[in-house]
Amino acid sequence: MKISPFKIVALIGRNNSLSVGKLLIALAGRLTHCGFQIVFESKTACENGLHSYPALSLAEIGTHADVAIVLGGDGTMLGIGRQLAPYRTPLIGVNHGRLGFITDIAIDDINQLPQMLLGSYEREERSLVEARIMRNGAPIYHAQAFNDVVVNRSGFSGMTELRVSVDDHFMSDQRSDGLIVATPTGSTAYALSSNGPLLHPQLQGIVLVPIAPHALSNRPIVLPDTCRITIQIIGGRDVNVNFDMQSFTALKLKDTIEVRRSRYTVPFLHPLGYSYYRTLRKKLHWNEHSSLGEGKSG
Amino acid sequence: MKISPFKIVALIGRNNSLSVGKLLIALAGRLTHCGFQIVFESKTACENGLHSYPALSLAEIGTHADVAIVLGGDGTMLGIGRQLAPYRTPLIGVNHGRLGFITDIAIDDINQLPQMLLGSYEREERSLVEARIMRNGAPIYHAQAFNDVVVNRSGFSGMTELRVSVDDHFMSDQRSDGLIVATPTGSTAYALSSNGPLLHPQLQGIVLVPIAPHALSNRPIVLPDTCRITIQIIGGRDVNVNFDMQSFTALKLKDTIEVRRSRYTVPFLHPLGYSYYRTLRKKLHWNEHSSLGEGKSG
Amino acid sequence: MKISPFKIVALIGRNNSLSVGKLLIALAGRLTHCGFQIVFESKTACENGLHSYPALSLAEIGTHADVAIVLGGDGTMLGIGRQLAPYRTPLIGVNHGRLGFITDIAIDDINQLPQMLLGSYEREERSLVEARIMRNGAPIYHAQAFNDVVVNRSGFSGMTELRVSVDDHFMSDQRSDGLIVATPTGSTAYALSSNGPLLHPQLQGIVLVPIAPHALSNRPIVLPDTCRITIQIIGGRDVNVNFDMQSFTALKLKDTIEVRRSRYTVPFLHPLGYSYYRTLRKKLHWNEHSSLGEGKSG
Amino acid sequence: MKISPFKIVALIGRNNSLSVGKLLIALAGRLTHCGFQIVFESKTACENGLHSYPALSLAEIGTHADVAIVLGGDGTMLGIGRQLAPYRTPLIGVNHGRLGFITDIAIDDINQLPQMLLGSYEREERSLVEARIMRNGAPIYHAQAFNDVVVNRSGFSGMTELRVSVDDHFMSDQRSDGLIVATPTGSTAYALSSNGPLLHPQLQGIVLVPIAPHALSNRPIVLPDTCRITIQIIGGRDVNVNFDMQSFTALKLKDTIEVRRSRYTVPFLHPLGYSYYRTLRKKLHWNEHSSLGEGKSG
Repeated sequence: MKISPFKIVALIGRNNSLSVGKLLIALAGRLTHCGFQIVFESKTACENGLHSYPALSLAEIGTHADVAIVLGGDGTMLGIGRQLAPYRTPLIGVNHGRLGFITDIAIDDINQLPQMLLGSYEREERSLVEARIMRNGAPIYHAQAFNDVVVNRSGFSGMTELRVSVDDHFMSDQRSDGLIVATPTGSTAYALSSNGPLLHPQLQGIVLVPIAPHALSNRPIVLPDTCRITIQIIGGRDVNVNFDMQSFTALKLKDTIEVRRSRYTVPFLHPLGYSYYRTLRKKLHWNEHSSLGEGKSG
Repeated sequence: MKISPFKIVALIGRNNSLSVGKLLIALAGRLTHCGFQIVFESKTACENGLHSYPALSLAEIGTHADVAIVLGGDGTMLGIGRQLAPYRTPLIGVNHGRLGFITDIAIDDINQLPQMLLGSYEREERSLVEARIMRNGAPIYHAQAFNDVVVNRSGFSGMTELRVSVDDHFMSDQRSDGLIVATPTGSTAYALSSNGPLLHPQLQGIVLVPIAPHALSNRPIVLPDTCRITIQIIGGRDVNVNFDMQSFTALKLKDTIEVRRSRYTVPFLHPLGYSYYRTLRKKLHWNEHSSLGEGKSG
Repeated sequence: MKISPFKIVALIGRNNSLSVGKLLIALAGRLTHCGFQIVFESKTACENGLHSYPALSLAEIGTHADVAIVLGGDGTMLGIGRQLAPYRTPLIGVNHGRLGFITDIAIDDINQLPQMLLGSYEREERSLVEARIMRNGAPIYHAQAFNDVVVNRSGFSGMTELRVSVDDHFMSDQRSDGLIVATPTGSTAYALSSNGPLLHPQLQGIVLVPIAPHALSNRPIVLPDTCRITIQIIGGRDVNVNFDMQSFTALKLKDTIEVRRSRYTVPFLHPLGYSYYRTLRKKLHWNEHSSLGEGKSG
Repeated sequence: MKISPFKIVALIGRNNSLSVGKLLIALAGRLTHCGFQIVFESKTACENGLHSYPALSLAEIGTHADVAIVLGGDGTMLGIGRQLAPYRTPLIGVNHGRLGFITDIAIDDINQLPQMLLGSYEREERSLVEARIMRNGAPIYHAQAFNDVVVNRSGFSGMTELRVSVDDHFMSDQRSDGLIVATPTGSTAYALSSNGPLLHPQLQGIVLVPIAPHALSNRPIVLPDTCRITIQIIGGRDVNVNFDMQSFTALKLKDTIEVRRSRYTVPFLHPLGYSYYRTLRKKLHWNEHSSLGEGKSG
């Protein structure tokens, strides 16, 4: 008989609704029946009125649970992943809407979950970056980001002027709307709409994507993720920085943001047979029927 | 009672198959019944064994028919349009597969045709370009293009070097895989996949789109369609030119291609309520559900 | 003897400095000597302590002067042009730094000015757009723009959601950082860094360039400048609009911005032999030596 | 006293001319004087009439020389590097024209060479890819590439249709002009002009860049260089493949190209203080004065 690698399974949900509550209850029942010990994240329990299972904070889940199942969209998954990163709790993402880039199990397929929890999964480590903001030589803010660190101008001002250095080597002064520093996970998010490349999740790289750069030759560059990237504000008004489009911080002239690979990675568990490329095909509409005009078919 | 602007209706089909033949026969019967006089394009008649109606060559259709209904894809429509251009015969495009950019009536909607032919249509003029190739001061080839004139390198050689002038003003020497000169109609074809902009069909413009240009600042440029564009081959081996991806011609060093707006335009007839933007939305998958990763929703 | 088309010449300068003041005095002296009547824009006169010539407001210059010489960068030229547009006063741009896209006479070449003012020039009309903001059915703001009308998100929020219509035809709902509506003059400014095409100044077109669009197929589109473009805010927080990166206005949900070609155009005067393409080559570094790695030279 | 890591120094030159010959002779004399043993590559010796030093084939240089100094452009350096790769001979690139991406010592700075050869250098490993072409299950061609493996259509035909797989996982069927598989070194060559990202030389990655892809969402993707990439020709006529734009091979339907990281890397030696970013700044004209129109300076 197969021995499951997991005993305590945490359930985390967002977008509280009657249907989500019912789903969670049904799932908890089913997994209990399979011999797993279920705990609910306390906010999930509270919002959905789930009182028949233990309710734990995220920190407690990090310490006690063996795996966490997240019911929500990619945004939820990112947020939970960022908070559980220090605990290395493996995550399984279930999407109750359309499939996401990282929530790859459809609600209709949650009957796969017991099998996965019994060991039939593929494990993938996703990297994060960590950033700190330095002002007058002292750190004033510190954050982890799963997708990206974005320095950008306010909508009420003109362009930013940024001095970018890598491992203390000067790279360039750039005038632009801003700069995105993205992980492979983030390469399918904001970076992609700013003309950045896709980075395979296992690539040990970080990509810098300029936003509307003044110089047309200022192109995205992929760096080894062992690099330390330093961005100094050398011009522009009302510049700010955000982490995964959360926690916006206003910056001052001469402030510096340092970004490097986080010491944490987040383990994702996928059903056997998972394919990153299938996700790309689906989300990016690859291999759908042609979108361009004909007359070019040799 | 409404008087139809059309008496003689030509039917033109491609991709001969039993089903296309049957469709054409049924359509011809229905339109005859509505009082229109039907002629078949001779190749269509021959391929589909349609002998109960007069068969005319394209030139005869141009001279005698009041309107032509084309059953096929965008490529068929382009080819027929190019040939009928000198006659200004209005065209109606029926697509027997997925809708195209310019064949905008689905096979299932051909019951709209009698109504259209009775006058319920929107008329749109599409512009063409005409090009001639000059060698040693003399023209060696002349062609019309509905989509584009494309100068490009052979796959077995390196880049081309082209000298581009507009109305005898030098624009630039460019090193690239080639250059696309596209009409608004062609802006949704090859030009689009080489990063060109969309041009509204009614824009009086022609776009030059460099293919994989050596200089990153060598961007697409939209010119008034009153311009005469001259492209001279000043470097590269095995360079050639094609018109709507048809009729490829090998070029020699110092050969010159002159492109200008054609003296012809092709009238397209659309059902009432036609929207160019709806076609763009459909073909380019605009307003489908989001394709990018979440985490950027403010 | 040649009769000059101009009698009263206005001199307008910015970036007041001793050197600019001296230049203006010298230029005024020289042109007076040639028989022109010189007036100074009042702010220019004041800032540079120029009291020996009449000082006129911009509105007075518009009414009385036959031509205005603007000493400054492209930004100065744009601002003056916007204000003088209703008067159709022809402008000559002199750049006291590097040449701009529209200030095409170098400070070292101002000895060309008397000759130009005697009639040796090429005249070019540049189009503007005008925009008004509608809230609850009533206009709340109105402005002219020489370069562009830009709707964009604040740096402290996520994306905007905009509903774009053209002549009351729905085009698309787009999620992005914003949307640029640019004139041909503006096509070399912000629009270019957001991947827009170049538009020849004489093209009768307006380009819509999405900024970091969510949908990768959401491409720049060039419309005839007879179109009326309507942009409605249907999502996003802290959205605002600006005109030539001036006069920022905060928008609310359901606000609508209407953009159309301005009733005004601004005449630019260039030295004989002026070439728009030479300006492009110079500003965009075309035809400089190769910027890409070798190994691709056939 | 410093002990040089090198004893036998090979000199390799191309673009034979009187000046190159003289330079090589002078350099050989100087290095001999410094105690190094000089050998000439036999073709270099022959073309320049250099008979006072031993002449070795490239294979002999690979076996016997401790380091090779290459006088030429990036193309020369790539070719020599590809051939010396199996021997791991370190290369120093001297450019007798403008500096290249990988030939980073100007002819005027060759007095740095003795110092470098005495140990004052920075060593950098550059990766290659190796590719083989499979037809009917058997390999028909094998090659190393320093920059890229490029599958593309002929200029006389329409698009290619390629099936791309990675480590036997299906990625996508793509319709395009072709596909570039590039190393970090190649990311500044053809891949860059096809909208690919820059890859830092130390990134352990390979980038796939589609050329004029039919689907607008078909974007460049960076893969770990441990991947095996398989490209099968599933449509299109006259498709071919080349390696560093050399050795073109015509392909047939169903042919497959397999690309993976080469077992070889090529060591480059740079002067102390070398900066990859400085090369980028110089070659891509970063941090030159602004190229865009003003009016966007907040």
